[in-house]
Amino acid sequence: MAGTDNGKRNAMSGPQPVMVLVKPQMGENIGASARAMWNFGLDRMRLVAPRDGWPNPKAEAMSSGAGRLLDEATVHDTTADAIADLEYVFATTARDRDLTKEVFTPDEAMKKTRDMIANGQKVGFLFGPERSGLESADVVRANAVVSVPVNPAFGSLNLAQCVLLLAYEWGQDVVPQPDEEFRMSAGELAPSADVGRFVDTLVERLDKVGFFYPENKRDSMIANLENLFRRAPLTPPDIRILHGVTRALAEKVRGRK
Amino acid sequence: MAGTDNGKRNAMSGPQPVMVLVKPQMGENIGASARAMWNFGLDRMRLVAPRDGWPNPKAEAMSSGAGRLLDEATVHDTTADAIADLEYVFATTARDRDLTKEVFTPDEAMKKTRDMIANGQKVGFLFGPERSGLESADVVRANAVVSVPVNPAFGSLNLAQCVLLLAYEWGQDVVPQPDEEFRMSAGELAPSADVGRFVDTLVERLDKVGFFYPENKRDSMIANLENLFRRAPLTPPDIRILHGVTRALAEKVRGRK
Repeated sequence: MAGTDNGKRNAMSGPQPVMVLVKPQMGENIGASARAMWNFGLDRMRLVAPRDGWPNPKAEAMSSGAGRLLDEATVHDTTADAIADLEYVFATTARDRDLTKEVFTPDEAMKKTRDMIANGQKVGFLFGPERSGLESADVVRANAVVSVPVNPAFGSLNLAQCVLLLAYEWGQDVVPQPDEEFRMSAGELAPSADVGRFVDTLVERLDKVGFFYPENKRDSMIANLENLFRRAPLTPPDIRILHGVTRALAEKVRGRK
Repeated sequence: MAGTDNGKRNAMSGPQPVMVLVKPQMGENIGASARAMWNFGLDRMRLVAPRDGWPNPKAEAMSSGAGRLLDEATVHDTTADAIADLEYVFATTARDRDLTKEVFTPDEAMKKTRDMIANGQKVGFLFGPERSGLESADVVRANAVVSVPVNPAFGSLNLAQCVLLLAYEWGQDVVPQPDEEFRMSAGELAPSADVGRFVDTLVERLDKVGFFYPENKRDSMIANLENLFRRAPLTPPDIRILHGVTRALAEKVRGRK
């Protein structure tokens, strides 16, 4: 298994988008955003005029395990300064701003981000203050808008949740997925012949106790039984357990005779 | 625009998976989970033996706007009781349990959920207590595992974040997406001819000030200029502004002569 996700591990340490928190109000949310980012391998944070100054002990307390992101975060006076070196900027916003600007879902935005980064471009995402969201001037400054599609009757994503969903979509292509690193560890499956041998043994035992009755239903009963055990993915230990179970039951039945 | 998302609105009020919080510890997390669910149109919550009893004022305080989910949540003594009527159950877990069980990403799990629900099946998701996650007995009881692929070096999703990511993936197919309800509201684009007329006017004005020099570069300079304005999606108000801007500039230049 080692090695199967090297590509993705490399991607995780490679170029990535910058997350820019504009005038964040609560330190807790900055810390939670750092954790949300690092869960999906993002570690470049920029802060524009955080309300309570910087560094912020509440941000540090909340960031446990992702404190490095806060140590390395850069602090800027203005959004313009924070994004000066970026070639493409997404503004996250929940509201329709009545501005003609392309609107992406998180999924689409991260697809575009990966393409741009692969072409050597520098990409960033702007997140607004908790209470009010981004100012229109910052939305105008961005090249496109990202909006998380939420329940029209109830949209209440907070800052760190919004960062989490964007980071999650970035992670979709970067973080090792279960089929690479997790699923295989669940063990090999039993070869078809071993499953077949178990079914044969079971049928033999059931025949001894007259299970297949009436005789003209025998074939279809056996087919259903085999199908049941073929349907579940069985491992070699599963097969051993099943052999043991049926043997124990069969012996008990024989003992009763 | 009204009507374009009727299908999705109907889907939002139709059958949906049940979210089962097993032995949740902090009321705040129950409330935050309710909000996370309702952001994406999920409103069926079940609770198994919440640590601090039920109802829980801290859950209510945190659920603002999604309190109905808590009022309607059912409370159960055991996981077995909470899922008794469900035909397919996913267990969310971050850890490899060394159990042979199919592992889904949130994306894949919700695709499967939609298919099963379309076939009339009842589906649920189990979420474990904050500190320890689901007990193995509850994972065994489930039909499959859902695992959010996270940074192998740092996985720290909390209960409500895990609920949020699952709900978000459910919402992908259910909540109206921006291309249906949001993007169109940004206004119509200007017809091609209007853009062309603006470029013609601009070229005329630039000719008057001898902008296209040397003469043999004229055609390619005009092509580049037109291309610039064709590249941006322009609305009728954009065109009016551009006419105004170039007229004002041209008049100033003429005034100087």
